[in-house]
Amino acid sequence: AKKYTKQIQFVEDKQEFSRFPTKAGRRSLSRSISQSSTDSYSSAASYTDSSDDETSPRDKTQLNSKGTNDFCVKNIKQAEFGRREIEIAEQDMSALISLRKRAQGEKPLAGAKIVGCTHITAQTAVLIETLVALGAQCRWTACNIYSTQNEVAAALSEIGVAVFAWKGESEDDFWWCINKCINMEGWQPNMILDDGGDLTHWVYKKYPNGFKKIRGIVEESVTGVHRLYQLSKAGKLCVPAMNVNDSVTKQKFDNLYCCRESILDGLKRTTDVMFGGKQVVVCGYGEVGKGCTAALKAMGSIVYVTEIDPICSLQACMDGFRVVKLNEVIRQVDIIITCTGNKNVVTRDQLDRMKNGSIVCNMGHSNTEIDVASLRTPELTWERVCSQVDHVIWPDGKRVILLAEGRLLNLSCSTVPTFVLSITATTQVIQTLPTVANKQQIAVYEYVASLHLPTFDAHLTELSDEQAKYLGLNKNGPFKPNYYRYKCPC
Amino acid sequence: AKKYTKQIQFVEDKQEFSRFPTKAGRRSLSRSISQSSTDSYSSAASYTDSSDDETSPRDKTQLNSKGTNDFCVKNIKQAEFGRREIEIAEQDMSALISLRKRAQGEKPLAGAKIVGCTHITAQTAVLIETLVALGAQCRWTACNIYSTQNEVAAALSEIGVAVFAWKGESEDDFWWCINKCINMEGWQPNMILDDGGDLTHWVYKKYPNGFKKIRGIVEESVTGVHRLYQLSKAGKLCVPAMNVNDSVTKQKFDNLYCCRESILDGLKRTTDVMFGGKQVVVCGYGEVGKGCTAALKAMGSIVYVTEIDPICSLQACMDGFRVVKLNEVIRQVDIIITCTGNKNVVTRDQLDRMKNGSIVCNMGHSNTEIDVASLRTPELTWERVCSQVDHVIWPDGKRVILLAEGRLLNLSCSTVPTFVLSITATTQVIQTLPTVANKQQIAVYEYVASLHLPTFDAHLTELSDEQAKYLGLNKNGPFKPNYYRYKCPC
Amino acid sequence: AKKYTKQIQFVEDKQEFSRFPTKAGRRSLSRSISQSSTDSYSSAASYTDSSDDETSPRDKTQLNSKGTNDFCVKNIKQAEFGRREIEIAEQDMSALISLRKRAQGEKPLAGAKIVGCTHITAQTAVLIETLVALGAQCRWTACNIYSTQNEVAAALSEIGVAVFAWKGESEDDFWWCINKCINMEGWQPNMILDDGGDLTHWVYKKYPNGFKKIRGIVEESVTGVHRLYQLSKAGKLCVPAMNVNDSVTKQKFDNLYCCRESILDGLKRTTDVMFGGKQVVVCGYGEVGKGCTAALKAMGSIVYVTEIDPICSLQACMDGFRVVKLNEVIRQVDIIITCTGNKNVVTRDQLDRMKNGSIVCNMGHSNTEIDVASLRTPELTWERVCSQVDHVIWPDGKRVILLAEGRLLNLSCSTVPTFVLSITATTQVIQTLPTVANKQQIAVYEYVASLHLPTFDAHLTELSDEQAKYLGLNKNGPFKPNYYRYKCPC
Amino acid sequence: AKKYTKQIQFVEDKQEFSRFPTKAGRRSLSRSISQSSTDSYSSAASYTDSSDDETSPRDKTQLNSKGTNDFCVKNIKQAEFGRREIEIAEQDMSALISLRKRAQGEKPLAGAKIVGCTHITAQTAVLIETLVALGAQCRWTACNIYSTQNEVAAALSEIGVAVFAWKGESEDDFWWCINKCINMEGWQPNMILDDGGDLTHWVYKKYPNGFKKIRGIVEESVTGVHRLYQLSKAGKLCVPAMNVNDSVTKQKFDNLYCCRESILDGLKRTTDVMFGGKQVVVCGYGEVGKGCTAALKAMGSIVYVTEIDPICSLQACMDGFRVVKLNEVIRQVDIIITCTGNKNVVTRDQLDRMKNGSIVCNMGHSNTEIDVASLRTPELTWERVCSQVDHVIWPDGKRVILLAEGRLLNLSCSTVPTFVLSITATTQVIQTLPTVANKQQIAVYEYVASLHLPTFDAHLTELSDEQAKYLGLNKNGPFKPNYYRYKCPC
Repeated sequence: AKKYTKQIQFVEDKQEFSRFPTKAGRRSLSRSISQSSTDSYSSAASYTDSSDDETSPRDKTQLNSKGTNDFCVKNIKQAEFGRREIEIAEQDMSALISLRKRAQGEKPLAGAKIVGCTHITAQTAVLIETLVALGAQCRWTACNIYSTQNEVAAALSEIGVAVFAWKGESEDDFWWCINKCINMEGWQPNMILDDGGDLTHWVYKKYPNGFKKIRGIVEESVTGVHRLYQLSKAGKLCVPAMNVNDSVTKQKFDNLYCCRESILDGLKRTTDVMFGGKQVVVCGYGEVGKGCTAALKAMGSIVYVTEIDPICSLQACMDGFRVVKLNEVIRQVDIIITCTGNKNVVTRDQLDRMKNGSIVCNMGHSNTEIDVASLRTPELTWERVCSQVDHVIWPDGKRVILLAEGRLLNLSCSTVPTFVLSITATTQVIQTLPTVANKQQIAVYEYVASLHLPTFDAHLTELSDEQAKYLGLNKNGPFKPNYYRYKCPC
Repeated sequence: AKKYTKQIQFVEDKQEFSRFPTKAGRRSLSRSISQSSTDSYSSAASYTDSSDDETSPRDKTQLNSKGTNDFCVKNIKQAEFGRREIEIAEQDMSALISLRKRAQGEKPLAGAKIVGCTHITAQTAVLIETLVALGAQCRWTACNIYSTQNEVAAALSEIGVAVFAWKGESEDDFWWCINKCINMEGWQPNMILDDGGDLTHWVYKKYPNGFKKIRGIVEESVTGVHRLYQLSKAGKLCVPAMNVNDSVTKQKFDNLYCCRESILDGLKRTTDVMFGGKQVVVCGYGEVGKGCTAALKAMGSIVYVTEIDPICSLQACMDGFRVVKLNEVIRQVDIIITCTGNKNVVTRDQLDRMKNGSIVCNMGHSNTEIDVASLRTPELTWERVCSQVDHVIWPDGKRVILLAEGRLLNLSCSTVPTFVLSITATTQVIQTLPTVANKQQIAVYEYVASLHLPTFDAHLTELSDEQAKYLGLNKNGPFKPNYYRYKCPC
Repeated sequence: AKKYTKQIQFVEDKQEFSRFPTKAGRRSLSRSISQSSTDSYSSAASYTDSSDDETSPRDKTQLNSKGTNDFCVKNIKQAEFGRREIEIAEQDMSALISLRKRAQGEKPLAGAKIVGCTHITAQTAVLIETLVALGAQCRWTACNIYSTQNEVAAALSEIGVAVFAWKGESEDDFWWCINKCINMEGWQPNMILDDGGDLTHWVYKKYPNGFKKIRGIVEESVTGVHRLYQLSKAGKLCVPAMNVNDSVTKQKFDNLYCCRESILDGLKRTTDVMFGGKQVVVCGYGEVGKGCTAALKAMGSIVYVTEIDPICSLQACMDGFRVVKLNEVIRQVDIIITCTGNKNVVTRDQLDRMKNGSIVCNMGHSNTEIDVASLRTPELTWERVCSQVDHVIWPDGKRVILLAEGRLLNLSCSTVPTFVLSITATTQVIQTLPTVANKQQIAVYEYVASLHLPTFDAHLTELSDEQAKYLGLNKNGPFKPNYYRYKCPC
Repeated sequence: AKKYTKQIQFVEDKQEFSRFPTKAGRRSLSRSISQSSTDSYSSAASYTDSSDDETSPRDKTQLNSKGTNDFCVKNIKQAEFGRREIEIAEQDMSALISLRKRAQGEKPLAGAKIVGCTHITAQTAVLIETLVALGAQCRWTACNIYSTQNEVAAALSEIGVAVFAWKGESEDDFWWCINKCINMEGWQPNMILDDGGDLTHWVYKKYPNGFKKIRGIVEESVTGVHRLYQLSKAGKLCVPAMNVNDSVTKQKFDNLYCCRESILDGLKRTTDVMFGGKQVVVCGYGEVGKGCTAALKAMGSIVYVTEIDPICSLQACMDGFRVVKLNEVIRQVDIIITCTGNKNVVTRDQLDRMKNGSIVCNMGHSNTEIDVASLRTPELTWERVCSQVDHVIWPDGKRVILLAEGRLLNLSCSTVPTFVLSITATTQVIQTLPTVANKQQIAVYEYVASLHLPTFDAHLTELSDEQAKYLGLNKNGPFKPNYYRYKCPC
C-alpha cells in the first residue's frame, strides 16, 4: 500500500475543471450515470420485492449467506434477482470485464480502500465489482435517495461489498449511510469515487484528518466538479482530483452519438410523431445540435438551425442546414428542439405564434431554454396527456405539445445505452489505477477507447518501427496531442 | 338515393385483389388500421372509466343527451373523454377535415347508408364522422373484441352514430353487435366498410337479399380482400368491391416510410440498444427492408442484406449494402431483422450460432420468419425480461434476445403515426364517394395524396395549357399510368 | 438455323412500347449507349492516328492480317490500339465475359446472322464480340457519323467482323455503310440490333423481302422504339421486336443510380462549384430527380423540389425536401436542375429573377426544359467561358451560368460508367438468344441482374423447397410478377 | 503611419506554429492557395496570349494606360482578359468584397506598405485589390515560377499595383523579381505577406535593417511556417508573425468539407468509376478520412476504415464503418484511399494482392503513403492511360490503377472551390489589419466566418443582454474559448 499511495498522482489540470464554462460543459451534468439509472430502475421494477415491507432497513438485522452483516439494504433476499440484472448489464460492459481479465493475478488496486457514492444500479455494480476484482476494498452508498435498485444493493452485499443504500431514503438516512461508509474502525479510506460531491464534502467537513489521507478523488458530475473547483480556488483542495466528466470519449459519445439516437427515441416515446416531412428547428449547433440535426435529416425531416456563433453557423451551412433566426420560421415549424445551454431561447411571444399541434422540447441545459414559466398564465390551459407530455391550449383552441415540462428530453423520455455508461465507468476505474499516474490524460482516454473496440470487432492497425519514427510517435501512443483531452468544441 | 345507387360503380379490377400473392401483399394485412389502434388504445387507457362496471352493456339501458338509445356501448358518460381524443386525432388527420370542408353543402354521400366494422378508435371516429359530414347514415361495430376505445364509442353514440361495440366483448356479443348494425327496421344498408370481412360475410350469409342491394364494399385488410377474392372466384360476388389495402399511397407510407421510423422505435422501446456501430443483417430488400436498412445505416449501423431476388440484390449493392448469405455473417452480427414474407428465414441452427446478447426480430409477415417454435426445447431457458422481450438462454449461458416472440415488431412494440392512418382512412372515405365511379384508380390515389400535401405545406406546380398538351396529359391529372395503382414492387 | 428461326418468338408486348408516353419514357432516349460513347470517344482521342489522312476510307484498299477485306474503316493499322481499349472495357463488363463462358461449346447463337447499327466504341465492341463468341455472324455499322472510335472499328475488322464505319462520315457515307452491312451476296440477315431505327427503316424500305425474313429486332433507343410503334400501329410490323430501353434494370441504373453520381460529376467538371450549403431547386421528382436530390442532399446542399404530381410530391416531402413552386425560391437558389421531361419549366421571366452567379442546367429531356431560346435576345450577352459553359450576362452585370446550352448535363459534361453500359449490352445480347423466347420478360431482367452480382461479390440466398412452396414461387425465379418488367414509375 | 506601426501587435502564439507536428499539420501545406491556383491556371489557359513572344519581360519596356512602368509582366495588353477573370473570381469571394465596403472611407490599412509573394491568380488578385482598397500600398511577386496567370499580373499592373511576375521565370528571374519588390527607393515595406517563406528569407538575409522595420509577417504555407519557427527557435525572429495555415475555419473547410467533395471529383475525372456498390478502404480517420468516407458512403460505396488511433477508431465504428487492418480486406476492395500522413501505408506486398482493376490513390500527405517506388520494378509494366492515370500491370495481366503517381489526388486531379480560397484570403487580409492586434485569434476566425455567412444567406441569432450575462459572454463574441483557434483534432 505504501507504494500505492506514493505512486498516485493526479493530473495536472485539476484547476481547469470549470475553466471553460461553456454550454457544453454545463449540460453534461445531466448525462451522468445517475440520471440514466433512474430509467434502468423503472424498467427493472418487476424484480423488486412487491411485499411492501415498511420496516426501515436501519431497524433490521440481516445477514448475507456468508454470515456477515456489514451492509444495510432493503432486503438481502433479493440478491439473486439483482445478480441476474448485473449479469445482463455485464453483457454490454465488456470493457470492464476485459479489464478484470487483464489484471488477473496482479491486483493493481491492492491496498486501495475506496469509498463510493453513486447511483446504485446494475451498471454501477459492474463498476464496483471490477474495482474489487482489481484488488480494492470498497464501501458504497447512494448519491440519490430514489435511484437505488434494492435488488442490486442486495446482490453487492451478498458478495461482501459494504453497501448502505435503499430506494426511498429520508435525508437523515442519506447522511447516515454516507457516514457508515466512511466511519469504520480500523479502516481508513484512501480514495473517493463520487457523483455529486456529497461524499467528498462530508469527508472534508467531518473527517479533516482522514481527508488528508485521501490519495485521489474521482468525480464524474459537473456539480461535483464545480464544488471541487471552488475548494481548489479557496486553496483547500489538498487532494488530487480527477474530472471524469469532460473526457473526449465520454463527451463525444454522450453528446454527438447518443443525442443522435435519443432525440428520435424521446420524440417517438412521447408523441408517436412521424419524422418524415416534418419541419424542425434545432436551436444550437454544438455537439448536441449536430447529433439531433443529423438524425432528423436522416429520417426525412426538414431541419433549420439557429446559432449565435459564426463558426458553428458556417458548419451548419456546409452540413446542409439553413441557418435562420427563430422568428423567421416560428410560424411554419412542427417541432422546436433547444440545444444551446442558454436561457429563454424560446419565448412566450414565440410560443404564441407556433402552429396548432407543434411540439417543443429541450435537449440542452436544465429547463431554462424554453421559457416554460411564461406558459403558466391563466388564459392558457394545461392538459396532461400522459407522463411527460402536456398540451398547452390557447384560448382559440391551439395546442402546443410541451415535453418533459422543458426539462431534458433524453433523460426524461428516453434511455441511455449501457454501452455509453460503460465508457464512463471504465474511465472511472482506470483513473483509480496507480499505473495511470504520470500518464498524459490523452493516453488514458485512448486506453479507454481501445477497451471498447472489441464490442465492434474493430481491429487497430499497428505502426511499424519505421512509421512510428517517421511520425515521431510512440508505437503504443498517445497518438494525439494532450490538449485533445478536452472535449472537442467544434 | 336513386341517383346514388345508379352512379356508383366500382373499379374494374376487383378480381385482381390477390392476383399477386407476393410477400409484400400478404404482410400488409398486419399494417391495417386495426392493429395500430391497439397501441393507441393502451396509451389512452387512462381515460377509461376505472370503476370496474361488470354489467354487460347489452343489459344496460342508456340514453345519450339527445334522448336516443340506438347504440350499445360501455358507458355513454365517457363521451366527453372520447370527444377530446377524437379532437386530438383530428389534428393529424387534416386531410379528412379538408374533405369535409370541400364537400360542405353538397353532401355527396346523401343517400348512402353505410354499415361499418372496423376497430373503434379515435382515428376511425374521425373517419366515421367524416362520412356523416358528407351526408351518409352510419351504423358501426367493432372488428375486434379487444380493441374498442370505450370512450370513443361513447362519443360517437352521443352525436347520434349507432355504435355497437365495447372492449372485451364475448364472441356471442361480437356477432350480436354485427347483427344489430344491419338488422334495423326500415333501414337497408347500401354500402359496407369492412376490416377483415366478418361483416361482409354475415350479410352475405344471413341477409342474401340485402346483400344484393349493397352497391359497394370497401375492404382494407388482406384477410378480407382474400375472402372477397374467394367469393369472386366462386362467382358469388355480385357486389363491386374495393381493395383499399394495396393502394400505392398506403403501401409506400406503410412500408418504406413507416418502417424506416418504426424499426428504430421498436428496437429502442424494447432493448434500449445503441445503433451506432452495431452489425445488423436485414433479410429481404423489398420496401420494408429498404426502410429498415436506410434507417439503421443513417444511425451508424453496419448493415448486411440477404435476398433471393437478383434485382433487389443489385439495388442493395448500389445502395451500399453487402449482399450475403445469412450463414456468412451469423456469427458476427448483433441484430437480425427479417422482412421477407417467407418462412424459417432464421433457423434454429442459425440461432445456435449467434453471439451472446444478439437480438432477433421480425418486421415481415406474421410470425413464420423466425423459427420460434424450434426454440421451445427443454435445453433452452426462456426468461421474460419485460413485455415483448424474451431472453432465450443456451446451456452455456449465451443469451439471444427475441422480440415479440417473432411477431411483427412494429405492431407489437412501436406505434403507427396517425398521419399514416389518415392516408388509409381518407382512401376509404373517397372510395365511398359516387364521384369516384368511372375514375381511374390512379386518379383516386393522386387525390388522396393531394389532400395530404397541406400537412407539409407543399405547393404543387400546375401545368400550363401548353405543357399539358406537350405531355399529352390532363392539367388535373392523372399524371401516372393506371398500372401505377398497384403497389410498387421495387 | 431452322430450329433457330422457329424457336425465336419475341415478347407479347411489342405494341406497348410507347403506350405510356410519360416523361420518364421519353427521356430515356438520351441515356442509350450511343450518347455516352461520345464521351468515351473524346477521352480516347489520344490513341487515334494523328496523321491527318484525308483519303476517304471508301477509296482505300485495306487488308487485315488474315488477308480479308470485308470491312471499311479509317485505318486497319490502329487495330492494336483498339484492342487495348476493348480489353480495358472488358474489365468492367464482366457480365458479358461470364456469358461467353457459360455458353462455351453450345454456341446458342449458331445460325444467327445479325446486322447491327450502334455507336462503335470499346463497349459495343465487347457486346459484338460476345455475340460472335456465342456463335453469331455479325456485320456492323455506326448509328452516328461522329461517334465512331476508329481504332475500335479497326480492331473489330482485324478479327473478322465486317465493320463499315469511321469518324466523320458524310450523310452519303452513312447510308452507304448501312447498305454494305445488309447487302452481301449469299448472306441473309435474320436479326437486327439497332439504335435509333435507321438500319431497321432501311431494311424495311429497301429490302421488303429481306425484312420478312428477319426473326427479331432489338432496339434500344426511344426514337427507334417510337418508329417501331408507328409501324406497328400501321399494321406493318410483321417482325417481333424487343424494347431494350425500358427494362427495369436499365432504367433503375440509368436514372436513379447514375444520375445520383453524374449530377455531381457534371456540375464539378463544368463549374467547380462547392455543393456544401448551396441552395438548389430540382424540378421533377421522378427517378432522375430522386437521384439528383439524394446526391446533393448528401453533399450538404439545401434542396427544394417542384412537382406537378401529388404522389411524387408526397414522396419528396417524406424524403425531407420542401415542395415549392419555382417562383417561391427563384430569387434565392444557387442552382436549378430540371428533370421533368416537360418544356419551358424554367422561363425567361424566372431566369431574369435569378441571383448573380447562379447555375442552370438540365438532367431531363432534350433541351426543351430550360427556355434557352428566350435568352438569345440582344440585351443579353453570352460569354463562352469554356466548353459547355456559358455566362449569360444581363445589362446590370448579373451573370447566370448556363451549362451545355440546356442539353443533357450528364451526357455533355460527365461520363456514364461502363458498368451501366454493361447492363444494357447484356440485355441486348440476351434478347438475341433463342432460349429467351417464351420466357417472361421479368425472368430476363432477373437473369441480367444476376450476371452483374459478381461485380459486387454479392451472394444470393436460395430458396429451400419448403420455402418455394410456401411462397408459391419457382426456386429459380422469376421472383416478381411480370408487370414488374416495366420501368418502375415511382 | 506612425499610429499604424505602433498599433500592430501580432498574436502571442507565434512560437506555437509547429508545436504539434501531427499528420494533419503536415499535410496542410499542400492545400494552400498555391497548389490550387495551378488548376485555375490551366483552365484559364485559353485566355493567355497565344503569340509565343519569346522576349524576356525583363528586356521589355511596357507602360500601363496611366503611363507608369513600375512593374514587370509578360504583356500589359492582356490586362482586359485578366480583369474579366478577376471579376469572375470576385463572385465567389464576396467576403472580401464586403470587407472593402465595410472599410470604405476609413482606410484601415493607410500607412501599410506590403510586399507580397504568392501565386498570382485571379483569386489572389481579389486579395491584393482588397488590401489596396483598404489603403495599403502593395508590391507583389510570384512564389512559384510556373503558376502565374500572365493576364492577371497584367490586370494588376494596369491599375497600378507593382507586380513582378510571369509564367515561366528562370530561377534568376525569380530572385530578381523578389528583389524588385523590396528594393525601391523611398519605399520601406512594413509588412510581408508570404507563401513559402522565400520573400521573408530574402529580406532577412539581404536587408537585415529593413527586416527590423517589418511590423508583421503573414505566412500561409506549412513550409513557410516551419522556416519561421526555425528562425524563432534560433532567437532570430524579431518580427511578429502570423500563421494563417492552421486556423479552424481554414482547416475544417480544407479538410472535412472539401475532401468530402474532392474525393468524388478526383476519382470521377480520372477513372469514371461508378461509386455505387464499390468496396473502398479509407486509411486514416482524421478530418480528411472523415470527409472521404462520408462522401463515399453517401454515394452507395461500402467503406472500411483502417486506423492506428483508438479514439478515431471508435468514432469510425459509431459512424458506421468497419475498422479493419488493411490486410483483412486487401483482396476484396475496389478502391484504396490513403489519408494518414504516414508513410508506406500501402506496401508492394499489399499491391500484389489487390484485385484486377482496383484503384489506389492518396488524399493524405505528399507521395509517401503509397509505396510507389516499390512498383518501379522490371516485372511490372506501367501504362499511362491518360494524364494522372497509370495502369500498373502484373505479369499475369492484373492491372492496378494508380492515380497521380501517389501524389495528392485532390490537388492533381480535382479543383478547389474559390469559396475555400476566399476563407484563406480573407483570413490573410484580416491578419494585416491593425485592429486585429490584441484580439484573441478565435475572435479573428469568428469574424472571418461571419463574413462568409451571407453567401449562404445565413442569419445569426444575437444574444440578448440577459442571455449574454447568463452565459458570461460578450454579445459580439468570441463565443468559443481561445484554444479553439487550433485546428480541431477530432
